Amino acid sequence: MYRTHTCGELRIADIDKSVTLSGWVQRVRNLGGMTFIDLRDRYGITQLVFNSETEDKLSEAVRNLGREYVVQVTGKVAERSSKNSKIPTGDIEVIADGLKVLNASDLPPFTIEDETDGGEELRMKYRYLDLRRNPSRKALELRHKMALEIRNYMDKEGFMEVETPVLMKSTPEGARDFVVPSRMNPGQFYALPQSPQVFKQLLMVAGYDRYFQIVKCFRDEDLRADRQPEFTQIDCEMSFVDQEDVLNTFEGMTKHLFKSLRGVEIEGDFPRMPYSEAMKYYGSDKPDIRFDMRFVDLTSTASGKGFKVFDDAQYIGAICAQGCASYSRKDLDQLTDFVKRPQVGAQGLVYVKYNEDGSFKTSVDKFFAADDFKAWADFCGAKPGDLILILAGKEEKTLSALCELRLEMGSRLGLRNKNKFAPLWVVDFPLLEWDDETERYYAMHHPFTSPKVEDVELLDTNPAEVRANAYDLVINGVEIGGGSIRIHNDELQQKMFKILGFSEEEAENQFGFLMNAFKYGAPPHGGVAFGFDRWVSLFAGLDSIREVIAFPKNNAGRDVMNDAPSAISDAQLNELMIELKGEAAKKVKEE
Amino acid sequence: MYRTHTCGELRIADIDKSVTLSGWVQRVRNLGGMTFIDLRDRYGITQLVFNSETEDKLSEAVRNLGREYVVQVTGKVAERSSKNSKIPTGDIEVIADGLKVLNASDLPPFTIEDETDGGEELRMKYRYLDLRRNPSRKALELRHKMALEIRNYMDKEGFMEVETPVLMKSTPEGARDFVVPSRMNPGQFYALPQSPQVFKQLLMVAGYDRYFQIVKCFRDEDLRADRQPEFTQIDCEMSFVDQEDVLNTFEGMTKHLFKSLRGVEIEGDFPRMPYSEAMKYYGSDKPDIRFDMRFVDLTSTASGKGFKVFDDAQYIGAICAQGCASYSRKDLDQLTDFVKRPQVGAQGLVYVKYNEDGSFKTSVDKFFAADDFKAWADFCGAKPGDLILILAGKEEKTLSALCELRLEMGSRLGLRNKNKFAPLWVVDFPLLEWDDETERYYAMHHPFTSPKVEDVELLDTNPAEVRANAYDLVINGVEIGGGSIRIHNDELQQKMFKILGFSEEEAENQFGFLMNAFKYGAPPHGGVAFGFDRWVSLFAGLDSIREVIAFPKNNAGRDVMNDAPSAISDAQLNELMIELKGEAAKKVKEE
Repeated sequence: MYRTHTCGELRIADIDKSVTLSGWVQRVRNLGGMTFIDLRDRYGITQLVFNSETEDKLSEAVRNLGREYVVQVTGKVAERSSKNSKIPTGDIEVIADGLKVLNASDLPPFTIEDETDGGEELRMKYRYLDLRRNPSRKALELRHKMALEIRNYMDKEGFMEVETPVLMKSTPEGARDFVVPSRMNPGQFYALPQSPQVFKQLLMVAGYDRYFQIVKCFRDEDLRADRQPEFTQIDCEMSFVDQEDVLNTFEGMTKHLFKSLRGVEIEGDFPRMPYSEAMKYYGSDKPDIRFDMRFVDLTSTASGKGFKVFDDAQYIGAICAQGCASYSRKDLDQLTDFVKRPQVGAQGLVYVKYNEDGSFKTSVDKFFAADDFKAWADFCGAKPGDLILILAGKEEKTLSALCELRLEMGSRLGLRNKNKFAPLWVVDFPLLEWDDETERYYAMHHPFTSPKVEDVELLDTNPAEVRANAYDLVINGVEIGGGSIRIHNDELQQKMFKILGFSEEEAENQFGFLMNAFKYGAPPHGGVAFGFDRWVSLFAGLDSIREVIAFPKNNAGRDVMNDAPSAISDAQLNELMIELKGEAAKKVKEE
Repeated sequence: MYRTHTCGELRIADIDKSVTLSGWVQRVRNLGGMTFIDLRDRYGITQLVFNSETEDKLSEAVRNLGREYVVQVTGKVAERSSKNSKIPTGDIEVIADGLKVLNASDLPPFTIEDETDGGEELRMKYRYLDLRRNPSRKALELRHKMALEIRNYMDKEGFMEVETPVLMKSTPEGARDFVVPSRMNPGQFYALPQSPQVFKQLLMVAGYDRYFQIVKCFRDEDLRADRQPEFTQIDCEMSFVDQEDVLNTFEGMTKHLFKSLRGVEIEGDFPRMPYSEAMKYYGSDKPDIRFDMRFVDLTSTASGKGFKVFDDAQYIGAICAQGCASYSRKDLDQLTDFVKRPQVGAQGLVYVKYNEDGSFKTSVDKFFAADDFKAWADFCGAKPGDLILILAGKEEKTLSALCELRLEMGSRLGLRNKNKFAPLWVVDFPLLEWDDETERYYAMHHPFTSPKVEDVELLDTNPAEVRANAYDLVINGVEIGGGSIRIHNDELQQKMFKILGFSEEEAENQFGFLMNAFKYGAPPHGGVAFGFDRWVSLFAGLDSIREVIAFPKNNAGRDVMNDAPSAISDAQLNELMIELKGEAAKKVKEE
């Protein structure tokens, strides 16, 4: 038996017990002829005490210990003279009388401490050591607890977890699929699911009524900072529901998770904001409503007064930063630099300081009079002491830049507290987006999303205006999930494919089985999918989803720990009847 | 709102309530001016009653209904005059006053009944209809419940569920990998996991102590009846444990699952049987011990008496079928045909009837005397009235054929009751298997399995004799899971790779990161993985794992419902820098 107790278990009530512990050497200190060792495992840290003055084998073994050695220790529990109230085992120590080294350790490439000296690259290469650190372990413990909490809650609400295939049919719609060549079906490929969308709809056709799954999904996209080629989704679907039913159900789940995992009680209903309003007032379909600072449209008020930037602008928008009239030249220069960054993309920044004495100090004094500024201030609800910030230009671009500026001001003003949570449903998304390049409509959500009943007629006359029964859950400006009521009628689904530019043959080839299923009694249904990684990182207060994934990949899609992906043998390629070509062939040859 | 109640919810207490139900039309009967409809959903069946004599729209709508139509009905709950005690809603019916067809249905290709007229091929093509049948739904409900039960139990026992990568490194060891070409890393491939083995060991190195995961795994093997290219595993690993700790932990889990899901209390410890004993007495490493009928070795007793078949045999083995001395000529011919089948592979069958009067009637009367038969009977513990069945030939083949015969006799004698469960740990597996063809050793379990301490020396002198710390859980002759204590020392691991014929470079290339991890304080650890699909099918009393998988593939690895795998576009192939060759290229061209 390797241990009688874990390293987090012993208390004052255990005094005088003979115990055996196993764990990792966290720290070794020598003091007054004694050696103190902090022994660590997943459950905690226990202090071991060795008499280091004797010249026996035990003392010699202790002297040879290094950080991260794995040892088994026997001894007797004693009360500590100087207690450590910071750890649950801080009242006791173990007076050791035996030591066995179970495994030695080389010096780790970075310290196994909460604040480590290892950079991300190094931590990921030695991820198994990084995972020993408390912050990493706590993030994965939270992930485990959250998944379990979701499953128990969903079960209680009558949802059945059903596993859907990972090896599925490839479809050219949506993001790029990862594909898997089939050896048994030469020349053919499976695809890894971008989501189990079609299968969950088929489960509704099968009458399963309430389905969920915590499931891995895959997208072969060029990776941005917070994307991973494989990610985890909380995938849900319900039958005989309209949008209200779905929102209420998952508002319940969200509140439950906040309460059980974060101890946060969210009062009242989540606000519901139409997409058009979100874009108008926040310049984003995922507004952070922990703070207000809505956009004010000054286009008609501020243009035509001879200031060319405004006069040429398609849109002039302002936000009011309360109490910021005291901003210095330097502050304002910083903000101007901020909005000019390529990621933000504004041409410049106009400011209006509404001074405490009621006067105005602005960057456009020569073009406007105090009356103008007063009018703007009134529009913005600004009071003396406030600062009005204005961007102007092409509408879409300016809204987006103003969104970034608003978030920046929110951060500067301390309005984006990580421990405050402001959930929001964004609703009434457009059904379709026009793409100028390919000259066709794309589904904003996916091709299975139903149009609003009252907008169905517009499908023939003005598709761009059709609103969808689609919704997103946004928390603190992060899109946590989204979904829709689906089309459950094969004719409407066929029409949708037509609008999306599918030929009848293409639609039949790719989704014929779904439209066929709709012929055998498909119930009205809808659902939602949440980004599990993102949600965990929100709860953990971490900025990157990589920190809540046990073995993440880097931005090139590589696992730097085990160096995947890698070349495979010619024999494997032959069996699959594929060969490398172009650069790929050349590259592998060179190696 | 589509419904106030589900179709399984209404009871006598609900009489006179106005309700709205939604569901599928299961059955329509006309009787005495009334139309009775069984309305079905996942939760049950409720009887609806329509007055069909009136000439109004409602009656017309009812007349147009067909099987599997999806309808919404309003009405009032009433007590039934003739109650149906077989269903929970059998005391009531709904007197309908409104009907809305939510979706029509074509005539289903097979009946949606417990006993359907659809063959497996058809059921799989229309799997979404097959899943509407009670047996299918119940199997998936059991699967859901079992997964949840496992997760809660494991959590309570301190196990953390950690998700490991699906896109991982390809390794040539073990079964054939499914591979995924990486677009971002041309010429390189990910592999889908055959098991998260290496990751769970790294989690132990990371100090996670107790890990589990219910996880999809993949093997690109030619499919036998009960294999699927993707399957689900309950994957577990623990630190600071020896074999006893692991067996006890998972014996606890197994008992818990039997109790909570099947209501079966398994008394006492599971028997533990060395591999050598299992092979000797049952001819199999997964003996069905619901019944005894152990093999008796007659080799030395029965050979050398002039019966050539026995004299030439490497092994002569017998089983005793109690009370079967009365078997007819026909019965015995059937058994002879059975053992001669290619899957069983015996040359013939020798029988010895131990008649009630103490005499013997055998198929080898001319070669042996009554004394011989009496001696055999004594060896076999046979009594008057019993039948001894004997096979002879090459040892391995004969043991395997005798195993099949034993199972056949167990079935004939009703000793293999599906509701009786006999779990068993098979232990002390050999570490290595010699392969004559490739002239090298293969790991019987996998290359990370540790040899027994007392056998380590044999690694250098007689590797074939080394026993592993490896174990299988067998229930009713089905291998439900298996595992081992792992090697946690990089030197022993390197030695193991060497014995398995890896060059140092190959070992470094493929598993260098694991051996490197072992240098930083790897704890002793071990674990187990259970076949979740198989376990569910055992509990469900079903013979095929296909029946407990929502969307299974056929023996050619195809999803016949959505026709996956399928060809992908040239554009996709170009992006991945691969091209089809040989037959694959030709085949796709032709299409």
